Amino acid sequence: MSSKKNDIALSNENKLETLEKVGTMLTFRPDIKVVDCTIRDGGLVNKSMFEDDFVRAVYKGLEASGVDYMEVGYKTSKKILSTAEYGTWKFCDEEDIRRIVGDNDAKIKISVMADAERTDYHEDILPKSQSVIDLIRVATYVNQIPTALDMIKDAHDKGYETTINLMAASTVGENELIEAITILAESEVDIIYVVDSFGSLYTENIRALMYKYLAITKPNHKQIGIHAHNNQQLAFANTIEALTLGANYLDSSIYGLGRGAGNCNTELLLGFLKNPKYHVRPLLQCITENFLPFMKNHSWGFDIPYMLTGQLNRHPQPAIKAMKTPDNIDFTEFYDSLIEDVD
Amino acid sequence: MSSKKNDIALSNENKLETLEKVGTMLTFRPDIKVVDCTIRDGGLVNKSMFEDDFVRAVYKGLEASGVDYMEVGYKTSKKILSTAEYGTWKFCDEEDIRRIVGDNDAKIKISVMADAERTDYHEDILPKSQSVIDLIRVATYVNQIPTALDMIKDAHDKGYETTINLMAASTVGENELIEAITILAESEVDIIYVVDSFGSLYTENIRALMYKYLAITKPNHKQIGIHAHNNQQLAFANTIEALTLGANYLDSSIYGLGRGAGNCNTELLLGFLKNPKYHVRPLLQCITENFLPFMKNHSWGFDIPYMLTGQLNRHPQPAIKAMKTPDNIDFTEFYDSLIEDVD
Repeated sequence: MSSKKNDIALSNENKLETLEKVGTMLTFRPDIKVVDCTIRDGGLVNKSMFEDDFVRAVYKGLEASGVDYMEVGYKTSKKILSTAEYGTWKFCDEEDIRRIVGDNDAKIKISVMADAERTDYHEDILPKSQSVIDLIRVATYVNQIPTALDMIKDAHDKGYETTINLMAASTVGENELIEAITILAESEVDIIYVVDSFGSLYTENIRALMYKYLAITKPNHKQIGIHAHNNQQLAFANTIEALTLGANYLDSSIYGLGRGAGNCNTELLLGFLKNPKYHVRPLLQCITENFLPFMKNHSWGFDIPYMLTGQLNRHPQPAIKAMKTPDNIDFTEFYDSLIEDVD
Repeated sequence: MSSKKNDIALSNENKLETLEKVGTMLTFRPDIKVVDCTIRDGGLVNKSMFEDDFVRAVYKGLEASGVDYMEVGYKTSKKILSTAEYGTWKFCDEEDIRRIVGDNDAKIKISVMADAERTDYHEDILPKSQSVIDLIRVATYVNQIPTALDMIKDAHDKGYETTINLMAASTVGENELIEAITILAESEVDIIYVVDSFGSLYTENIRALMYKYLAITKPNHKQIGIHAHNNQQLAFANTIEALTLGANYLDSSIYGLGRGAGNCNTELLLGFLKNPKYHVRPLLQCITENFLPFMKNHSWGFDIPYMLTGQLNRHPQPAIKAMKTPDNIDFTEFYDSLIEDVD
């Protein structure tokens, strides 16, 4: 392990430049999967309190647009969060999902996210034969990996496809990150995600991470995913950079709906991909009919406070709080408060 | 000429991958110049009708932030556009600029843009010794290059620094573009700009253009600039990609203010550059005090119609028109109208 780790750390600088591009702009890669997480990540904007009609419109729109997966929400323990305080899509009971998708006879697959240490996975995740869910995505910080691995094994043994989303990669030291990816590569997981939780990564950071994830996981034949945030207006750019280097699970959300600065827009991503199975038009209809009204009561997307937490590699929480009273915001004061926190 | 053209066209594909990176994330390049065009490109949002206080706040903010150039507006012929219909900053008379910057004893330099065929350059551009302007930027479509070259010669002979901004590069055929850059490289101009007028270029297109501009202009020792639009949320990403490959004149605007989807945000760009002469904080104050009030009556920035014209490599004009009545907009109808226009 330690010699492997050193090899990778030492050769990183050189090999970065020799990563081969996968495909060109005029080809399409059939291995690409778009994972729309509008309802899941967007649930961080409204405590997952989406109306059924909204979720159904997203399902219909994504299905018509050819998107591969729809992530419908979180599988959170009801012992940890209250159903009085959070909406249906924070818990994703089987009957709630079926109320929207029936038996999901469509091509689109259904995904849920399960946070490490916040999910009663033994009880709340049914055997695949009893569920309309296809993909279980385990979100974990580096220190929660032992729990995450048990969750992955549980979901895998129950018959699901699985991903592991290693959050806040930008805050993990180089050696620790290499060790973490090495351990994840040896697990049952199908897909390992590069996650830019704070929206702090520049494109060259994405390249460096992609090299690490690809180099370490190659012997285990894992696939790589990318989940980007838009704090520095780089969510789309970083997603297509990762894609060009070999990532094939691409997270996005309609109109960028997601926590804080939001995510890579699904409609931007479909516009870039050359696979004729994808269509932007159904998403435009979904946005016009559902998202424009939704925006009147909820806000997300790039703004200065999110940019500042991104530039400083900080969790967006203080920016989200500041943006709750946009009429009184003073960006200079907000910047000063962030800098003071660091000292 | 024709053999040179063929060499470049043929070797383009191979050499693209061997472009050397200039600097790393932890170094700064003293050759970098940030050209803020808030008032100039932003003038396309309000017919250049900025109040003096607004322009003065931008000047003070940019000066304090260490930005290298402030573009204060256009030098448009008053025979072509009426001073009754357009504001001061569409014409930039010497006394108007001096009302804001005095003799400009600050370090920041002053720029104006002169559109080919829309400027009485012989009369309206004074000898440098009589003007507070430092840089004349000539904007030209490829078919206007003969006029643009005469404008460059005039400005150069009068003592100014000069750039040429070859607009709508995404619509010019490969051979024509190579010929155009070759001609520009042989002129008196100091800096040649890669301009993504329609916000339609992906990062790999920027790489391909950067290769062409650098390879062709190298014998003539020209510097390369980048002017990006944010139709696909790639203005910042494309700007730092061009910078990494060797561009050193970087256009941006405060809070992205500019036509349609706007430009690369100056505050994002300064956050990326590692030169200690740049400071984000004065821009945050300028945004809070001036741009947030301005936004109540003017709109710009990424939205679906701009994305669609960008994806289709079209001028943003129909999107700007559609966004004038945002409460009635139907993105699907707008998309259909664009597609019909193409047929």
